[in-house]
Amino acid sequence: MNAPESFDTLLAASREPFPASRKVHVDGALPGVRVPMREVALSNGETVTLYDCSGPYSDPAAVIDIRQGLDAPRAAWVEARGDTESYTGRAPQPIDDGVRSATQAERLSALQAEGLFKRTPRRAKSGANVTQMHYARRGIVTPEMEYVALRENGKREWTEAYAADAEREARLAGQPRGAAIPRLITPEFVRQEVARGRAIIPANINHPEVEPMAIGRNFKVKVNANIGNSAVSSGIAEEVDKLVWSLRWGADTVMDLSTGTQIHTTRDWIIRNSPVPIGTVPIYQALEKVGGIAEELTWAVFRDTLIEQAEQGVDYFTIHAGVRLPFIPLTVKRRTGIVSRGGSILAKWCISHHRENFLYTHFEEICEIMKAYDVSFSLGDGLRPGSLSDANDEAQMAELRTLGELTQIAWKHDVQTMIEGPGHVPMHLIQANMDEQLKHCDEAPFYTLGPLTIDCAPGYDHIASAIGAAMIGWMGTAMLCYVTPKEHLGLPNRDDVKQGLIAYRIAAHAADIAKGHPGARARDDAISAARFEFRWQDQFNLGLDPDTAREFHDETLPKDSMKHAHFCSMCGPKFCSMKITQDVRAFAEAQATLSDEEQRQRGMAEKSAEFRAAGSELYIPIKAQ
Amino acid sequence: MNAPESFDTLLAASREPFPASRKVHVDGALPGVRVPMREVALSNGETVTLYDCSGPYSDPAAVIDIRQGLDAPRAAWVEARGDTESYTGRAPQPIDDGVRSATQAERLSALQAEGLFKRTPRRAKSGANVTQMHYARRGIVTPEMEYVALRENGKREWTEAYAADAEREARLAGQPRGAAIPRLITPEFVRQEVARGRAIIPANINHPEVEPMAIGRNFKVKVNANIGNSAVSSGIAEEVDKLVWSLRWGADTVMDLSTGTQIHTTRDWIIRNSPVPIGTVPIYQALEKVGGIAEELTWAVFRDTLIEQAEQGVDYFTIHAGVRLPFIPLTVKRRTGIVSRGGSILAKWCISHHRENFLYTHFEEICEIMKAYDVSFSLGDGLRPGSLSDANDEAQMAELRTLGELTQIAWKHDVQTMIEGPGHVPMHLIQANMDEQLKHCDEAPFYTLGPLTIDCAPGYDHIASAIGAAMIGWMGTAMLCYVTPKEHLGLPNRDDVKQGLIAYRIAAHAADIAKGHPGARARDDAISAARFEFRWQDQFNLGLDPDTAREFHDETLPKDSMKHAHFCSMCGPKFCSMKITQDVRAFAEAQATLSDEEQRQRGMAEKSAEFRAAGSELYIPIKAQ
Repeated sequence: MNAPESFDTLLAASREPFPASRKVHVDGALPGVRVPMREVALSNGETVTLYDCSGPYSDPAAVIDIRQGLDAPRAAWVEARGDTESYTGRAPQPIDDGVRSATQAERLSALQAEGLFKRTPRRAKSGANVTQMHYARRGIVTPEMEYVALRENGKREWTEAYAADAEREARLAGQPRGAAIPRLITPEFVRQEVARGRAIIPANINHPEVEPMAIGRNFKVKVNANIGNSAVSSGIAEEVDKLVWSLRWGADTVMDLSTGTQIHTTRDWIIRNSPVPIGTVPIYQALEKVGGIAEELTWAVFRDTLIEQAEQGVDYFTIHAGVRLPFIPLTVKRRTGIVSRGGSILAKWCISHHRENFLYTHFEEICEIMKAYDVSFSLGDGLRPGSLSDANDEAQMAELRTLGELTQIAWKHDVQTMIEGPGHVPMHLIQANMDEQLKHCDEAPFYTLGPLTIDCAPGYDHIASAIGAAMIGWMGTAMLCYVTPKEHLGLPNRDDVKQGLIAYRIAAHAADIAKGHPGARARDDAISAARFEFRWQDQFNLGLDPDTAREFHDETLPKDSMKHAHFCSMCGPKFCSMKITQDVRAFAEAQATLSDEEQRQRGMAEKSAEFRAAGSELYIPIKAQ
Repeated sequence: MNAPESFDTLLAASREPFPASRKVHVDGALPGVRVPMREVALSNGETVTLYDCSGPYSDPAAVIDIRQGLDAPRAAWVEARGDTESYTGRAPQPIDDGVRSATQAERLSALQAEGLFKRTPRRAKSGANVTQMHYARRGIVTPEMEYVALRENGKREWTEAYAADAEREARLAGQPRGAAIPRLITPEFVRQEVARGRAIIPANINHPEVEPMAIGRNFKVKVNANIGNSAVSSGIAEEVDKLVWSLRWGADTVMDLSTGTQIHTTRDWIIRNSPVPIGTVPIYQALEKVGGIAEELTWAVFRDTLIEQAEQGVDYFTIHAGVRLPFIPLTVKRRTGIVSRGGSILAKWCISHHRENFLYTHFEEICEIMKAYDVSFSLGDGLRPGSLSDANDEAQMAELRTLGELTQIAWKHDVQTMIEGPGHVPMHLIQANMDEQLKHCDEAPFYTLGPLTIDCAPGYDHIASAIGAAMIGWMGTAMLCYVTPKEHLGLPNRDDVKQGLIAYRIAAHAADIAKGHPGARARDDAISAARFEFRWQDQFNLGLDPDTAREFHDETLPKDSMKHAHFCSMCGPKFCSMKITQDVRAFAEAQATLSDEEQRQRGMAEKSAEFRAAGSELYIPIKAQ
């Protein structure tokens, strides 16, 4: 295996369970539905259950061998439906891995010998349609749908606490802006949303390792992370570690954007080890097959690549079918032209041949492939703006309208579909993006890259875009594609991936709260209560990144005893506002128990003296801790 | 001097001019008005002028001696008005620096011997009112107002470019949401805004070193950074360096939140070396003077502290006069009670004495002091929410309404006033915050801390709050108080200060663009054009943090030749979408010059062949760069 020596160390770090957390499961009614969640135990005996996309990796009990791949609990569901068959599959070709020379072939076969996953692909039986949308529209609640419902609900420890304070709940009630999220997600609700096209469950029948999840405006906002090797970069084992590392920090889906050689084999390793849906941009591999010459691309090569990847188990394909020939001149006056890699490849093909985009002309044939494996469309926005200047221009909008037309075609075939979105958009044009998408694409889930709200923050684009991402998530975007600090500058390393994911988990969570997603605030409520009560360990453990929170605290107050201190280094013991408030509260509560008459009798002066007498111990000296 | 040995190195790093940047000046019509700006020279011969709050420090020609303090160009303006007088001033007392022991006194006198700034304070002549608001209301355009106007306008290189593309300008036109920003800021406009109370120019007559700036919804959104030593932390020279470091990364004002001993002397050093307005929370020092016992606070001690700080030159005071006795019980049911340090100190005083807040009862007397020095109010929100749960609750709103009443009183005295705001607020409740503030405080500038949009991101609260800050900035907030990654966890170090400021510069800039602040987009347009044309150095130099951008790029492509490469490490030379677009553009432009008839005649096939012939050099091999 071409793993670096440090691979085991790397993977061990990526697998380390979060502190005070354990993997718990909720069982469904349908056979084999067992939904993993992360339960955080607090020092006061309470627990908080969190949505968990880290898969078996965060379970110390799970035995992981990346050469074997993960278990495939979903295989039984696919088989039980009886509408698929296993078949020989497409014969592997050296060019799938970009192999053109003997050296390359040798390197590859060594690699494959280590980790080649022997398996027989499945596809729909002749005439069958195996998409979740197809089942949904026929009224069938699949195990995948039940899984999603349970996963979205979590354990709902918050329900009683929420019910107990009606004033607070009314005051904080979300503004769903057109979303309609029920208090309890039922499997039937999931079915309706999938049938309506408002949500997708990306789950290729050849990816039985997947833990089903939903992308839709009436579900939690999801986050995608991009990984992938390139000519000069990482090896395959490192890519698997990057996958696991991404899941640790909250990637709901992962796109493998590998280019260069070993592209097929890398993908095999990734899919077989991934509990989350995997997306790809098939045109990248197709381009590799024709030696990187966009003009040489053909429908035949592309179609073959789709089959190849569908057989491997890719869950969604980015397809840039909206980059139509007549739209290309619309990009001429732009400040930054076409910034999508796929979009520019297709634009080049179109103008070189002066013909319509072959993805557009062959769209129905693509649908036929999608429905035979249940690969979901992620209709690519090849003409997305690459700068504020180009935001919401005619090129972008023309493509978006086309994506709307294509959505209707995909839905005619019951193919699950989401729509990719920008890019670079100033805050005041974000709502228009969302409105247009909802209108033209009939509420098919929107999946946006950011958007970045300014152009001039290279090195900090995860922040510039988290602002736009949070806003568009609130407005109705279903999944946010992360942006790392390396955007516009280079390839993200391990820490960049983490930074990008945390920024996007913040954005997605802020959106869920603003929409009023039931229970979304429970984690915040728990951490705030811990903050008020000086339960430092609980504060760290409930944070998005417990290690960093603990580290930051320890920089100024490293001693273990300080984890129990009723103050922090910001105000010190004398000035701690939280401490003072606790005293204030004790006083005010005491006051509240007196009747008006009593209050009058006892008088202001007396009460004041009382408080002074009781308050002599208000400040707890450091050494007493 | 108690400077660490590394102080000179530190300050040198904080003073290093940004690459390709020089300090330029725009002269005003009034005597002595000379406004510094930062001009970035691009490799294509263009320049971009940026708003510059770094003061003389970023000018390599400036000789800086922090023991002498900065030059005081504004002193002549103050004197020329003839309405102030110099006077002996309040006699310094050991307790001003918390000195209670011989050891403390010795340490302090050594410190003062090094850097004591001998000066005589000024105040308004008897019966005079020396606030900018007072002048504005009498129709006087002060040099400070002209300075602000020129500063806000910059050099306006963008005007022609903007005029040239009407479609783009219409498409990107901002949504001011009630702001009314003229295309050119005139001194008269500044005067009107200050007279109306919609903007303040914090500029104590005892801070003649200040470079005037405005805080108001019709000006650029500003950013404040908090610094300040505390019991266990940094020395004075380090505080000065922290100030300079904050200015480098874009602090428009700085609050000195020092506690502990040497509080007076620290402030002396900071003010004498600060080109930006300095704010404080006087109750912190007053509390030090009474040994940290909130109950022992008196109006006399507080009043004396106001005079002390006003004579030093503090430009704005946070005054928690809205924490009224009847509001305190409203905080009892909160999840996180009172989280403002000042608010909790006053709440404790109120309930201990069972009397109304003395800042509220003495408010008009405070106004008398403010107008004698032109100190601006920053009316503190002592009852701001410390968690999502407590956002927009009755305690917060009751205080806000009181701040509105106090604003009217301050304005009656022509005292400049801004209003502090939250805190922790979920996205969907931010607009209500802004609406209530505008309504109750009659458009007095809003100055918010964040707000944080989620509670569960300790270690990343600069991001969680930059989201809220950008949004509330767009909605009308005039200044954003930064939040660092250490929020809730510890004291920010040098890098935390930088991270906090950059996150907030992003938020403020995103807000300016959304509001349609004229010219705000020029920097983004320039960086995007550089990106499209592969001018890597220009991309770095126009970024908010050129060093980090360059470093990130060099991680994958370190060679100097790569700074001229027509691609980056993300896509590599073959797939570069920017490069392909340039080719597409060339083709489409050629096509556009043909008439319809010509196009018909030449036919599809021919054009396609043409492009192929022309395109054989589309990909530039790496070695050819």
